[in-house]
Amino acid sequence: APGSLVFIGDQKMEEVRLRIIDYTQTDLVEKELKNIDEAAEYNHSRSMTWINIDGLHDPEVIQKIGKIFDLHALLLEDVLNTGQRPKVEEFDNCLFVVMKMLRFDKEKEMVRANQLSIIIGKHFVITLQENVGDVFEPLRQRIRNLKIRNRLLESDYLGYALMDIVVDHYQVLISSLGDKIEDLELEILDESSSQTLEKVNDFKRELTYIRKSVRPARELIHKLTRSESDLLGETTRPFLTDLYDLIIQVVEATDLYNEMLSNQLDIYTTSIGNKMNDIMKVLTIFAAIFIPLTFIAGIYGTNFDYLPELHFKYSYHILWGVMIAIAGSMLLYFKKKKWL
Amino acid sequence: APGSLVFIGDQKMEEVRLRIIDYTQTDLVEKELKNIDEAAEYNHSRSMTWINIDGLHDPEVIQKIGKIFDLHALLLEDVLNTGQRPKVEEFDNCLFVVMKMLRFDKEKEMVRANQLSIIIGKHFVITLQENVGDVFEPLRQRIRNLKIRNRLLESDYLGYALMDIVVDHYQVLISSLGDKIEDLELEILDESSSQTLEKVNDFKRELTYIRKSVRPARELIHKLTRSESDLLGETTRPFLTDLYDLIIQVVEATDLYNEMLSNQLDIYTTSIGNKMNDIMKVLTIFAAIFIPLTFIAGIYGTNFDYLPELHFKYSYHILWGVMIAIAGSMLLYFKKKKWL
Amino acid sequence: APGSLVFIGDQKMEEVRLRIIDYTQTDLVEKELKNIDEAAEYNHSRSMTWINIDGLHDPEVIQKIGKIFDLHALLLEDVLNTGQRPKVEEFDNCLFVVMKMLRFDKEKEMVRANQLSIIIGKHFVITLQENVGDVFEPLRQRIRNLKIRNRLLESDYLGYALMDIVVDHYQVLISSLGDKIEDLELEILDESSSQTLEKVNDFKRELTYIRKSVRPARELIHKLTRSESDLLGETTRPFLTDLYDLIIQVVEATDLYNEMLSNQLDIYTTSIGNKMNDIMKVLTIFAAIFIPLTFIAGIYGTNFDYLPELHFKYSYHILWGVMIAIAGSMLLYFKKKKWL
Amino acid sequence: APGSLVFIGDQKMEEVRLRIIDYTQTDLVEKELKNIDEAAEYNHSRSMTWINIDGLHDPEVIQKIGKIFDLHALLLEDVLNTGQRPKVEEFDNCLFVVMKMLRFDKEKEMVRANQLSIIIGKHFVITLQENVGDVFEPLRQRIRNLKIRNRLLESDYLGYALMDIVVDHYQVLISSLGDKIEDLELEILDESSSQTLEKVNDFKRELTYIRKSVRPARELIHKLTRSESDLLGETTRPFLTDLYDLIIQVVEATDLYNEMLSNQLDIYTTSIGNKMNDIMKVLTIFAAIFIPLTFIAGIYGTNFDYLPELHFKYSYHILWGVMIAIAGSMLLYFKKKKWL
Amino acid sequence: APGSLVFIGDQKMEEVRLRIIDYTQTDLVEKELKNIDEAAEYNHSRSMTWINIDGLHDPEVIQKIGKIFDLHALLLEDVLNTGQRPKVEEFDNCLFVVMKMLRFDKEKEMVRANQLSIIIGKHFVITLQENVGDVFEPLRQRIRNLKIRNRLLESDYLGYALMDIVVDHYQVLISSLGDKIEDLELEILDESSSQTLEKVNDFKRELTYIRKSVRPARELIHKLTRSESDLLGETTRPFLTDLYDLIIQVVEATDLYNEMLSNQLDIYTTSIGNKMNDIMKVLTIFAAIFIPLTFIAGIYGTNFDYLPELHFKYSYHILWGVMIAIAGSMLLYFKKKKWL
Repeated sequence: APGSLVFIGDQKMEEVRLRIIDYTQTDLVEKELKNIDEAAEYNHSRSMTWINIDGLHDPEVIQKIGKIFDLHALLLEDVLNTGQRPKVEEFDNCLFVVMKMLRFDKEKEMVRANQLSIIIGKHFVITLQENVGDVFEPLRQRIRNLKIRNRLLESDYLGYALMDIVVDHYQVLISSLGDKIEDLELEILDESSSQTLEKVNDFKRELTYIRKSVRPARELIHKLTRSESDLLGETTRPFLTDLYDLIIQVVEATDLYNEMLSNQLDIYTTSIGNKMNDIMKVLTIFAAIFIPLTFIAGIYGTNFDYLPELHFKYSYHILWGVMIAIAGSMLLYFKKKKWL
Repeated sequence: APGSLVFIGDQKMEEVRLRIIDYTQTDLVEKELKNIDEAAEYNHSRSMTWINIDGLHDPEVIQKIGKIFDLHALLLEDVLNTGQRPKVEEFDNCLFVVMKMLRFDKEKEMVRANQLSIIIGKHFVITLQENVGDVFEPLRQRIRNLKIRNRLLESDYLGYALMDIVVDHYQVLISSLGDKIEDLELEILDESSSQTLEKVNDFKRELTYIRKSVRPARELIHKLTRSESDLLGETTRPFLTDLYDLIIQVVEATDLYNEMLSNQLDIYTTSIGNKMNDIMKVLTIFAAIFIPLTFIAGIYGTNFDYLPELHFKYSYHILWGVMIAIAGSMLLYFKKKKWL
Repeated sequence: APGSLVFIGDQKMEEVRLRIIDYTQTDLVEKELKNIDEAAEYNHSRSMTWINIDGLHDPEVIQKIGKIFDLHALLLEDVLNTGQRPKVEEFDNCLFVVMKMLRFDKEKEMVRANQLSIIIGKHFVITLQENVGDVFEPLRQRIRNLKIRNRLLESDYLGYALMDIVVDHYQVLISSLGDKIEDLELEILDESSSQTLEKVNDFKRELTYIRKSVRPARELIHKLTRSESDLLGETTRPFLTDLYDLIIQVVEATDLYNEMLSNQLDIYTTSIGNKMNDIMKVLTIFAAIFIPLTFIAGIYGTNFDYLPELHFKYSYHILWGVMIAIAGSMLLYFKKKKWL
Repeated sequence: APGSLVFIGDQKMEEVRLRIIDYTQTDLVEKELKNIDEAAEYNHSRSMTWINIDGLHDPEVIQKIGKIFDLHALLLEDVLNTGQRPKVEEFDNCLFVVMKMLRFDKEKEMVRANQLSIIIGKHFVITLQENVGDVFEPLRQRIRNLKIRNRLLESDYLGYALMDIVVDHYQVLISSLGDKIEDLELEILDESSSQTLEKVNDFKRELTYIRKSVRPARELIHKLTRSESDLLGETTRPFLTDLYDLIIQVVEATDLYNEMLSNQLDIYTTSIGNKMNDIMKVLTIFAAIFIPLTFIAGIYGTNFDYLPELHFKYSYHILWGVMIAIAGSMLLYFKKKKWL
Repeated sequence: APGSLVFIGDQKMEEVRLRIIDYTQTDLVEKELKNIDEAAEYNHSRSMTWINIDGLHDPEVIQKIGKIFDLHALLLEDVLNTGQRPKVEEFDNCLFVVMKMLRFDKEKEMVRANQLSIIIGKHFVITLQENVGDVFEPLRQRIRNLKIRNRLLESDYLGYALMDIVVDHYQVLISSLGDKIEDLELEILDESSSQTLEKVNDFKRELTYIRKSVRPARELIHKLTRSESDLLGETTRPFLTDLYDLIIQVVEATDLYNEMLSNQLDIYTTSIGNKMNDIMKVLTIFAAIFIPLTFIAGIYGTNFDYLPELHFKYSYHILWGVMIAIAGSMLLYFKKKKWL
């Protein structure tokens, strides 16, 4: 029923893990929370607070965090649905962004998604992930470094920085996939093994999967650049425009590689036809030359009582002559047809 | 002629069935009506009234309900046409929504549609279905439960809740279809039976059928989120936006699976070409090796009086030698061509 | 030259036929005009006048009707061009609608178009058709019936009713074509005769032809629903919206069936590949088994003086043994390859 | 360098040819100019002046005409570039339209373009063509005829009339090409010669070429209908709208024929597959029947000393019996497979 | 981390090269700078300054130039990223344009991109390139020529002139590629070598690569024509519109050639099918004629004791007669099937 919080998705980790970084220009507290209730004491405007939650399978945690930071019920529902489409929503007291972090699982040789919800309030940012293993460590390092954390004192910039890292990883992922696709190009004309086909198939599937996360992400960032929310300061806006440029590049790259794969498949199909023709030519040449010759030999292998040619002295030599003539004219014919 | 009510469609059930739930914050009446005229006494503003009609083949019932609740003639016509495209229309005193409920008929192995008309008035909601067997039981439970029916006291929210259930079932249907399509992926490269092809064909048809219901549903929900009708309260609007997110997800999933099937078909076609090549190679190798050998044997099977080789002592052994040499060089040639 | 009236198209009937129905709430005159000049006396505001002209090849008639009802020169030109694209144009004193009536010519098994121009004035409607044989008889019956012609006293509603009938016939046409296309689905996987292909081709061509009339009709109806012309009364507008719904359904149906045909063609092409593989397998199996055996038989059919195996007692039996072994192992090999 | 006038394109005629028609309601002067400077005396508002220039390879002429009629430098540059995309540009004192006149060169069997620039001033129209041989003779006749040149006294209407003739010729061209394409339809299923393929290829290329001229022409006419330029009078605007209808028809026809060709190619490809299957069936049937029989005959052609069957009295008849049985069962098998 | 300048891309040249041209209506200084700091003295409004930097791998140079001309940090970051998508950005004191210069590398037979950043300030233009070897020499000549540099005294016009040269080179590149593609057309129906396929593949790849640079360039120029920046003067705007026309032509040409290649590939695939059919026909004709004949010869090569036909006097002649009759009727059959 609408209104009650239910976790939808596969539970990917055992325990929910809560981490908090609370900092001002001069101070910094970073610790792991045992209980979500501890977060309440950081909900004030004197410092910037970043709470990260790994693991979404415990609705109670989400319920409590919703109560502490006064979050809308629909927002909390969306956080718990790991099949959520990437999107941004503006609430009175926060911006709510859902994205997918993508990484290539080398073992299973496929791209995996990890849903990330970013809640950007006035003095806090809350990130919620399906699973441990995010890509934000460089950002944490930057926060810990007194000298360069200036901009990160604003929640909108912190939100931007988080999204920027996610999109950056999209680009890395696409590039490495693209390299493999470009390598395939050389293979496609030479070797028509069914493995090539399998690769094309795999790459198509991966691109489809990536596009599912990347396209809506483009829309959401576009919506952010147009947003009139008070939570987005003037200094952060150019960075969002920049991020929009980046995600457009990513989307165009996926489209490009997808089209490239379609082209490759077309070329591949046609090259198979070419190879088939080559095979058939070999078969036809052999058959067309030797079948008539065998027939002639068969004639003189018959046991008719009265078969005059058998008794001529040079019959055998003439036979060879005729056969060579037939074979030769066949070869000339095929030569003329450019089959040889 | 325009203006007269005619039922258009297949009659799917025998008798029209009328059910009413009338409730306030504290009271609830739920009963089956014998006669549609009984509905008249519930047409007042003291309570929320939900009338559900299963079976549309009796124009008289529709006529009467139209009179009782003062519904526009065009609306009634649309209700009776079960080939109606999903849409929303705003009338002065009500919102009129047409959707298709989809379910998978396991026996016939195909998706079936059941047309649902929702009429949302100020103090009533009327639902009209082609057939018994709706998916609204959980909603009825929620209404019967005093504690959680708060929001359902508003007709707009009840309307939303009905649409939400319908769209939820779209998603369930697509997901289960999608799982089958993804399973097909593994089958496609290994086995090129014509059954695989039949499956692709079936899935394509099902998707086309689903899309016919889902795409216009997206449009109608979008129109609702933009509607300025007084009948839609401010508190219900965020839920509609949420529903719109959901239906977009559903539409994108159908597009995705459709594209996936097209990709699979392309891959499948190409893999058939690959297999053909393999078959042809086997044929060509056999033919190219044995046809010349048979020809040679044929030569020495002729009965010419004068055929000198027949009388040499080692002719037979030389023959074998030559034949093995020919076969061997053929094999080498095919090896070089990578046909072996 | 622009400005002079010329008939463009094939003349489809011999004589121009003029019919008039002139009616008020209480009276009705219906007659066939001998001369177009007689129409002049009905050009007043006391009654509703519907003039129908079958046959456009006489520019003089068109010229006169233009003078009587004060119609724009461009309008008259368009009426005479039977290759006119469906469209609506607003003039000061009338609305001008061009549509195509479609019907299935069972003899030639193809869809035929009959151009219909509708001129909607304040107190008159003029319809001009290329040919006799329209579909408006039910509408005439409705006009003749005193009790139900109420709405038809307004020219805008009469115009709507005419368009509604035309679009209704589109839907009937598409449905019957669609049924045939759906029947084809079952045929496509089983039988790959070239007749199936011819059918796909025919249906594609018919759909293309229909689309040529239906798509611009959608645009023109949309334009009408948005029109601010005084000639369209408030009471008629909801009917136009309804008509727009109907034509959208028609357009979507053509798109759907077109896509279905493309899918069928893809499936069909692939199924031909499958069948080819089956044929090739049979050929290859026969060839690969018997060609080597024939070769062996050929060896022992040679007439060499010294061929020791010929003289062993069990040679013949051994030969059979070897041959059966070869054939057997071949069969096993093909079994393993799943060709059997 | 931008700013200097250079002719870009192939010079298609030897000498530049200048013709002028200067007329009022009552008078008309028509002559060939020897020198472009003579044009200066007609640059006044007492009469309508139409200057036509055939041949663009002499930049000096263009330079002078630009000086006489005060034309913008960019306009002159565009006139000289025969690879110019069709477009309209509004300058302070004139409208500048570039279009392509298309004609079918029967000798080379391809469509040729001839660039036409139309400069519409307040009291003059200048047309500049790459080559002699325009299609404006009927228009000149109309101007020469006192009685019907009324409208042509306005430069905007003259400009419209010029464009109208160009677009009219587009339609004629497309129609005649379309007829050939429709003829091809009948050929496509019956005969799969490579000539059919060549035709499809040729038509595709022609359509692509035509589209290159027609599509931007549609845009430019659309822009004209929306233009707020003072040079376009109210009376001419409906004619432009009419012209826009016409060019849309042309564009839709090209799209339609293009799609028709794609469909034909698909059908053709599939029909080739069908034919291949038929060929393969014949081959397979012959091979499958006779290869085993030949093998059996081969067995009894061996020269083994001990081969008991050879000496039975009815061996030969039994052999025939067995062979006929094998061939018969093969035929039944192929019959069952529907290959016969 | 955002904010720090890092070079992203391949270093294509060894040393950064700085060139400056500083000029007024009457004076001109042109020299190579040893140190970027020297540029500072030219940052004033008395003259127009064009600084060109070849080589981007030294972030320090970029940093300094940013300080001297007061450039935004994000702009500098973008300059250093050679994977930047073409775009335009408006800053308070400058316009920032990123484009790709394309040239055909004849050795490697592929198109290469060289990123060009153009920074257009009030009194200066800075161009930054990945590599030496630009195409701006004609522009430099124009600047050096006192008489024709009038317009180039404005930075916006200089910026336009730079972009114009880049787009001009796009067109040259596309045209030469297009010529090759059109040549391919003739080859495609005659010769189905796999080299043709390789060429199609190569051209497709090149077009994809070019499109990656050209499409976003179109967007950026469109944005410039709409820009309300003070840096773009009224006199320069018509030139931008002209440039927009040019880039649209380029984009349409790439689309056209891409479509042409797809058409060619379709035609090619189908022509391969045609050729396959021709090959198969040859094979089938030979096989169908000689296999039955060989079988008959085989029959009379058997060594049965009792085989009456062998002893008839005219058996041999009858045999030939029968064989010729069979072969003849086969040929007639194939003739009727139009295989001959």
